[in-house]
Amino acid sequence: MKHFILASTSTLYGEGYLEYLQPAIKQLYAGVDEIVFVPYARPNGISHDDYTAKAAEAFAKAGIRVRGLHTFADPAAAIKSAKGFFTGGGNTFLLVKQLHELSLMKVLAEAVLNGTPYMGCSAGSNIGGVTMQTTNDMPIVYPPSFNTMGLIPYNLNPHYLDPIAGSQHMGETRETRIREFHTQNNTPVIGLREGSWIYAKGEQLTLEGKLSARIFLAGAEPYELPTGSSLSGL
Amino acid sequence: MKHFILASTSTLYGEGYLEYLQPAIKQLYAGVDEIVFVPYARPNGISHDDYTAKAAEAFAKAGIRVRGLHTFADPAAAIKSAKGFFTGGGNTFLLVKQLHELSLMKVLAEAVLNGTPYMGCSAGSNIGGVTMQTTNDMPIVYPPSFNTMGLIPYNLNPHYLDPIAGSQHMGETRETRIREFHTQNNTPVIGLREGSWIYAKGEQLTLEGKLSARIFLAGAEPYELPTGSSLSGL
Repeated sequence: MKHFILASTSTLYGEGYLEYLQPAIKQLYAGVDEIVFVPYARPNGISHDDYTAKAAEAFAKAGIRVRGLHTFADPAAAIKSAKGFFTGGGNTFLLVKQLHELSLMKVLAEAVLNGTPYMGCSAGSNIGGVTMQTTNDMPIVYPPSFNTMGLIPYNLNPHYLDPIAGSQHMGETRETRIREFHTQNNTPVIGLREGSWIYAKGEQLTLEGKLSARIFLAGAEPYELPTGSSLSGL
Repeated sequence: MKHFILASTSTLYGEGYLEYLQPAIKQLYAGVDEIVFVPYARPNGISHDDYTAKAAEAFAKAGIRVRGLHTFADPAAAIKSAKGFFTGGGNTFLLVKQLHELSLMKVLAEAVLNGTPYMGCSAGSNIGGVTMQTTNDMPIVYPPSFNTMGLIPYNLNPHYLDPIAGSQHMGETRETRIREFHTQNNTPVIGLREGSWIYAKGEQLTLEGKLSARIFLAGAEPYELPTGSSLSGL
């Protein structure tokens, strides 16, 4: 049975890494004592080893050991035999390039669709969508494709930001950018505010956390979906 | 002699389209009565025709007629015989995809390097850099390459934004994103604040406008460059 979490952010302002997600982690990985960490998004250019150590520290609080995917001689085999996954945030272009070049994107998707628990934050959530084309990240590398795992039939916009009242900045708002996406694509987009996550169990998709999400459908006005709502069949 | 402007934004807060650039436009296009407009970046999904009409209205104030590149049966020939160019802002991925797919990127670069005056704003400035990899835009389409015209040996980050004091948002700051770019690339990046532009005449590159620019070199701390400074040899 599919079981995964796609979270807007790893960290809330003033809190520790993954702190607000600890209850969700215990629920998602119940009975799992070790997971595989995907460190490829490398926020701030952190090394794979250092990023894995950071994840391990947070997961130790839930009694779960962490191994970095980069440490396996055969990462595809490691994915197939893993008991759970966590993909950290960072740069989505870097993450997607690496997963495609190592031919791991489909292998990871199949494992998750077959029921291995998965959690992603930010870039790690973006790859749960159909494509990475609603990321906020800078295209610092050129991936061979923008296609991602398609765990859900939507795209995500993590760290969703409402327009800032009174701003004199003339760059596009997040809403404008997502509307521009819909001039070229039809995939629904979920604007996921920091502190919100999508919880999937079997065929049920639910919005969790304290905030509403902003839903963008091609050719329609965006609207707010309250937390606790089903995200199936948008 | 090379003669071009790469501007951070088309529009300052509270002003009309290209209003603050009118003196620069008169200087750049002195003696030119008609230019070719590149409308492919399509901000907010505006049509090529509507976008061209908007540019034409602003250039009429300088006594210059505007023709949209999309209206020519042979756009490469139109570029080769043009007396000047303006590329408007919008989505850089869309602009770059179109220019590559129509095999116009190099044709346009050659015309500008051979001395036809060029002005770009925002996305239209991004393509003056070596690559589009420091754009702020969303990857709404997949371009065949991230390479751009390379009019200058740098990349640009238009609409450069300083970190917002007291922000509780956990998404990456602009500076963090550019530092991540430099974990993967060595090209210098000019963080160009709204109201600033790069003015090129022959081999002279100068920072114009009221504000300083933030200069990011791989492996070094970023620093401020005062307006009026030379941008050659960073």
